[in-house]
Amino acid sequence: MNERIRQILDHYQHENPGVRTNLARMLNHGTLAGTGKMVILPVDQGFEHGPARSFGMNPPAYDPDYHYELAIESGCNAYAAPLGSLEAGASRFAGEIPLILKVNNHDVLHDERDPISHQTSAVEDALRLGCVAIGYTIYPGSSGAGVMYEQLRELTVEAKSVGLATVVWSYPRGSSLSKEGETAMDVCAYAATIAAQLGADVIKVKLPTAHLEQDAARKVYEKERIAIGTLAERVRHVVQATFNGKRIVIFSGGAKTGDEELYDQMRAIRDGGGFGSIIGRNAFQRPKADALKLLKNIMEIYKGAAVPAGAR
Amino acid sequence: MNERIRQILDHYQHENPGVRTNLARMLNHGTLAGTGKMVILPVDQGFEHGPARSFGMNPPAYDPDYHYELAIESGCNAYAAPLGSLEAGASRFAGEIPLILKVNNHDVLHDERDPISHQTSAVEDALRLGCVAIGYTIYPGSSGAGVMYEQLRELTVEAKSVGLATVVWSYPRGSSLSKEGETAMDVCAYAATIAAQLGADVIKVKLPTAHLEQDAARKVYEKERIAIGTLAERVRHVVQATFNGKRIVIFSGGAKTGDEELYDQMRAIRDGGGFGSIIGRNAFQRPKADALKLLKNIMEIYKGAAVPAGAR
Amino acid sequence: MNERIRQILDHYQHENPGVRTNLARMLNHGTLAGTGKMVILPVDQGFEHGPARSFGMNPPAYDPDYHYELAIESGCNAYAAPLGSLEAGASRFAGEIPLILKVNNHDVLHDERDPISHQTSAVEDALRLGCVAIGYTIYPGSSGAGVMYEQLRELTVEAKSVGLATVVWSYPRGSSLSKEGETAMDVCAYAATIAAQLGADVIKVKLPTAHLEQDAARKVYEKERIAIGTLAERVRHVVQATFNGKRIVIFSGGAKTGDEELYDQMRAIRDGGGFGSIIGRNAFQRPKADALKLLKNIMEIYKGAAVPAGAR
Amino acid sequence: MNERIRQILDHYQHENPGVRTNLARMLNHGTLAGTGKMVILPVDQGFEHGPARSFGMNPPAYDPDYHYELAIESGCNAYAAPLGSLEAGASRFAGEIPLILKVNNHDVLHDERDPISHQTSAVEDALRLGCVAIGYTIYPGSSGAGVMYEQLRELTVEAKSVGLATVVWSYPRGSSLSKEGETAMDVCAYAATIAAQLGADVIKVKLPTAHLEQDAARKVYEKERIAIGTLAERVRHVVQATFNGKRIVIFSGGAKTGDEELYDQMRAIRDGGGFGSIIGRNAFQRPKADALKLLKNIMEIYKGAAVPAGAR
Amino acid sequence: MNERIRQILDHYQHENPGVRTNLARMLNHGTLAGTGKMVILPVDQGFEHGPARSFGMNPPAYDPDYHYELAIESGCNAYAAPLGSLEAGASRFAGEIPLILKVNNHDVLHDERDPISHQTSAVEDALRLGCVAIGYTIYPGSSGAGVMYEQLRELTVEAKSVGLATVVWSYPRGSSLSKEGETAMDVCAYAATIAAQLGADVIKVKLPTAHLEQDAARKVYEKERIAIGTLAERVRHVVQATFNGKRIVIFSGGAKTGDEELYDQMRAIRDGGGFGSIIGRNAFQRPKADALKLLKNIMEIYKGAAVPAGAR
Repeated sequence: MNERIRQILDHYQHENPGVRTNLARMLNHGTLAGTGKMVILPVDQGFEHGPARSFGMNPPAYDPDYHYELAIESGCNAYAAPLGSLEAGASRFAGEIPLILKVNNHDVLHDERDPISHQTSAVEDALRLGCVAIGYTIYPGSSGAGVMYEQLRELTVEAKSVGLATVVWSYPRGSSLSKEGETAMDVCAYAATIAAQLGADVIKVKLPTAHLEQDAARKVYEKERIAIGTLAERVRHVVQATFNGKRIVIFSGGAKTGDEELYDQMRAIRDGGGFGSIIGRNAFQRPKADALKLLKNIMEIYKGAAVPAGAR
Repeated sequence: MNERIRQILDHYQHENPGVRTNLARMLNHGTLAGTGKMVILPVDQGFEHGPARSFGMNPPAYDPDYHYELAIESGCNAYAAPLGSLEAGASRFAGEIPLILKVNNHDVLHDERDPISHQTSAVEDALRLGCVAIGYTIYPGSSGAGVMYEQLRELTVEAKSVGLATVVWSYPRGSSLSKEGETAMDVCAYAATIAAQLGADVIKVKLPTAHLEQDAARKVYEKERIAIGTLAERVRHVVQATFNGKRIVIFSGGAKTGDEELYDQMRAIRDGGGFGSIIGRNAFQRPKADALKLLKNIMEIYKGAAVPAGAR
Repeated sequence: MNERIRQILDHYQHENPGVRTNLARMLNHGTLAGTGKMVILPVDQGFEHGPARSFGMNPPAYDPDYHYELAIESGCNAYAAPLGSLEAGASRFAGEIPLILKVNNHDVLHDERDPISHQTSAVEDALRLGCVAIGYTIYPGSSGAGVMYEQLRELTVEAKSVGLATVVWSYPRGSSLSKEGETAMDVCAYAATIAAQLGADVIKVKLPTAHLEQDAARKVYEKERIAIGTLAERVRHVVQATFNGKRIVIFSGGAKTGDEELYDQMRAIRDGGGFGSIIGRNAFQRPKADALKLLKNIMEIYKGAAVPAGAR
Repeated sequence: MNERIRQILDHYQHENPGVRTNLARMLNHGTLAGTGKMVILPVDQGFEHGPARSFGMNPPAYDPDYHYELAIESGCNAYAAPLGSLEAGASRFAGEIPLILKVNNHDVLHDERDPISHQTSAVEDALRLGCVAIGYTIYPGSSGAGVMYEQLRELTVEAKSVGLATVVWSYPRGSSLSKEGETAMDVCAYAATIAAQLGADVIKVKLPTAHLEQDAARKVYEKERIAIGTLAERVRHVVQATFNGKRIVIFSGGAKTGDEELYDQMRAIRDGGGFGSIIGRNAFQRPKADALKLLKNIMEIYKGAAVPAGAR
Repeated sequence: MNERIRQILDHYQHENPGVRTNLARMLNHGTLAGTGKMVILPVDQGFEHGPARSFGMNPPAYDPDYHYELAIESGCNAYAAPLGSLEAGASRFAGEIPLILKVNNHDVLHDERDPISHQTSAVEDALRLGCVAIGYTIYPGSSGAGVMYEQLRELTVEAKSVGLATVVWSYPRGSSLSKEGETAMDVCAYAATIAAQLGADVIKVKLPTAHLEQDAARKVYEKERIAIGTLAERVRHVVQATFNGKRIVIFSGGAKTGDEELYDQMRAIRDGGGFGSIIGRNAFQRPKADALKLLKNIMEIYKGAAVPAGAR
């Protein structure tokens, strides 16, 4: 256990040794082991967006084994997926990579303005599949947010009691928010704080824009001249909003974008003090060789090195 | 246990020996035993559509014994029905055919745009009746889908803990979908994926049409030129959407149709790599002798033989 | 145990000896003991319609003892009532007549288009009061039907586990049905099937009219020329719809009518193969002596004898 | 135990000795001990109407001790109040008067047309505070009535299992009823019957007017010429509607009125065969000396004596 | 244990020794130890209003440690916060100050007219973090108030059973109230009474204005000439409304205001017989040194001394 990891774990003294062990397992696995940075491969798009939209552009990805292999070969810190996907490879790849069971899911066959993500697996499933953590999505801003907070609370208590860490996807959505507001600076920082207050060990949010959604918040940002002009500044503000850096907060890459844009996002996360990335579609929606190269470059950025010219 | 069955069961290594045993019981029973194909007789129409609509054209079918006999004599792999029907013959026909207890049901005396199928029996009922599996319907696309996902999850955990397999009917319905959309290619594949992610051992979907319902999905199907022109191609796509063939997916015959049309559907399922059929109304809504002949022909198709000319 | 009763009980081989014993107690009690026919006195109108509407025309009936006495003296097979009524006489009349505790109730002080009948007593109450069965009302056609199906299922499991039989009142109601539709032939047969599928031991429905409510059903009735012209034919069709006669189905007399009309209904039930009647208002809303005479005549009809001329 | 009390308790033979003991404790306490009549002091107005509306005209009544003292000194049979009020004096006044814990409450800061009274304390609270009974309000006529019936049922089972009696406030309210209908003769009698059927040991209703609310009921009252012209006749009808006098039914005094009017009400309750009164605002909203005098006069009426001239 | 504290604890004789011990811990901690007055630091604004609105004007306050230090160094009686905040410092500051775990929370990303505050932590969390009490918010006036009353009741029973005190934030809100009505005299006193009746050990309300919201209440205030003209009189009325001073009631400072205005509020609370203040934003939204000075002055006021001139 190196100094940096020990330092991070010191912020989790309220957790039992089991949870701290599982946090350490993620932090000490893969290419970024021991750096305090994490890159996680999440694949819940089959459930969340449908199979063809997720895998049609890279058909080998229909197979759950593909994602296990991608996460392992690329040296990710962990692989996160819903029940069915994890079960499909859990036996074959047992022990090869830390697993996060995504215990709730939402589909878009019925897409409400105030969504609720429903529980699709349980802590006992995470245990029998050898996972290090459960993952749970909340939608702050939805009229159903309170229902998810209460369910998350119950699952968190149960997960921690058996030594599993809790990873919370905090994605603002709902009828009170504009589309732009879902990634607004104030809303994103607020969503990160809510996850932290709910006891999340690892928090995942979207990269915020400079937009400010709520009037009462905008007044403070403007009056106090809070620095949110650059992406790195916005990342830093989110880190501040998660107990001043005392919780691991990582950022999602969102829809597939150009590689350079993606590398710039990673540099901003790194420079803003973020703890890393959770990269799904940008990784599994391209041929595996390309994905491995991309993930290698991203991990290099987190290690602080410039992306090698030839890799572009 | 022959090689093909062992191969299929290898995709269920996450299940306990009890569940695998019950899957093997279905795969190794009846005319198609050991082929890796299945034909299941389901009779829940009395509950779902009403008695006269279901049995008025073949009155002996009002009697629950009739369906036990039909399933047994025709050499089906299993017989699926709601509580009352199974109870009525469970004692007399004990041990003669694998049974699937359909644990939720919906009727059309009140027919909502966003339906929920309610629980009408339980895992403990399946055990005392000697069943190999529970059956459960979800309606992806309904505003009540999440409620069903959560109930299915709880029942699945309970069923598997006592060695019962889970068969999921995944039927898209609800206010977000057009009538045509309920059997659209994208929607059907999506529904199959959801069932797989929820931990279903056997998935039952309707045969998809070439219609594409959701804009975001259509773009991918068109851009990636996914082959869905023939029924066999569409079956193949559904198989792909269920963990690339790692889950047993079978197809429903739907309303009573002409026999040749039906045989063509079976050939498409066979050629597309589907695992078989669940045939209700086409079987029990005709005289028993005819039904036995029809099921024999269907099973011949699945065995790969052409339908004998004289049978037409 | 005579042959006819043994024959009926043979259809309940899936039930434990406790439930079969309690069914036998009802079938072997009172004037119709051993005939396979039943006449049950139900008195829940105080709750369902209010006291004055129920008893104002025969004030002694305000007293719960009155109904115990009426049921016992008339030789009914059983007496069914809600908690308070049964409790009031359970000690005084202990052991004198099989009791059915009506465990859910609905009142008309708030009368919704989609009604739900709420649980007002429990299986443990039925046990401590010495009952042979619980009674439960479902309203197929109501938007709340599913809630009642699920509650019935839970109560049925509990009741049967302690040897109590389950009697289900299946009364179609709700916003999807016309007033006429509540007693339509197709709807009534459908409601009877639903109760049978839910595991009811005894099913109570209203006498159906020749009206057909649902288009999809009407087509089948007409195409298949299902005989529903006479009341006896309609009764026979309901019997068919309850597992082809393998479940005890009895019919309610409805609002108070002329005696001859009532006798004709009983003859139709008898001739159609129905198992008997549940007669409330027609019995307790007239002076006791008249009621005893009426019930005697009805029981004579079920015994197959013509109503004696002098009794008219 | 005198003859009259034994006679009343004989109607509770279905209850266990614990419940009967606690009913006897109320009937044998205070000025009216052994008469079979009861006067109960209820003080839940702080919760139900707010503190100033309840106690502003008699400030000592803000103190919970005041009501204990008033109930004890006046010789009431019991004192009923919500959790906080009872807890505040339970230790100081332990054993001095039978206590009824009002386990649900409703406030008027949000006042719905279809109200639900929510549970605010529990059977275990009643036990630790030394109570003889729980009190529960139902609002027949509210769309939420069924929810309250089910909660009352559960609490009743629990209360009786530990020997506590159940006192039910049955107050018709809700969108289906006119304001006048809330105290209509037919509605009030109906509400009393519902409480009796739900297993209430003691039933509290408002004094009914001669108004008839529901058409179906009015027809019977008129056709059968049911006597409801005088208040005593209406009380008698309510007594009839509660199992023909086999349940203790008491009447609330309602808002503060003139004393003579109040005495006339008590005489009518007495003459109509009612079991007594529950008097809140008329007692605690005047100076204590006046309240003691009032309660003394009321108890004299129940003892059958005329109100002494000097007391007026 | 001095006389004043013993006097207060005498009003809690219904509580077990554990609860009384924890009340004593708060009353006997910090600068105001033994005075019977309390100043509590609450910090739930990160969750309730968002991070930047709460801490942007004083960035060190993003760090949960900051608030522990502020509460400890200023000599507050207790520190109250949601799960995440308490967990972050619970290990480092163990045993240094009584802690109150705020077990429900509400955010303004979705802000309803009839809000519900959802449970975000539990009694077992309070125990493992070494807290003396749980804190819970109710919104009397909201259509969801009853849901919160019932949840509070369950949590209170559980908390008290393990010796934890219950602190209730009673904040009127909802569609039935005008904005002005949320702090109206009648509404505020009513909200305080409701909390007391629900079994709260410590009640927190907002300082009331002289506005009267509800007609039925206004009539009484005017008729009885209840003194509510000065803030001290209004505080005295709230104290009266909480069992005539038998429950600890403290007042919130609300949004950040001028210091003199704040001192005047404290003097009014002191003069009106209130038990103290809960001061959040006025304390943590200024530099720490200023906050310590402010809290010192406030505590001096509660000790009865005038604010030293130099401190202004």
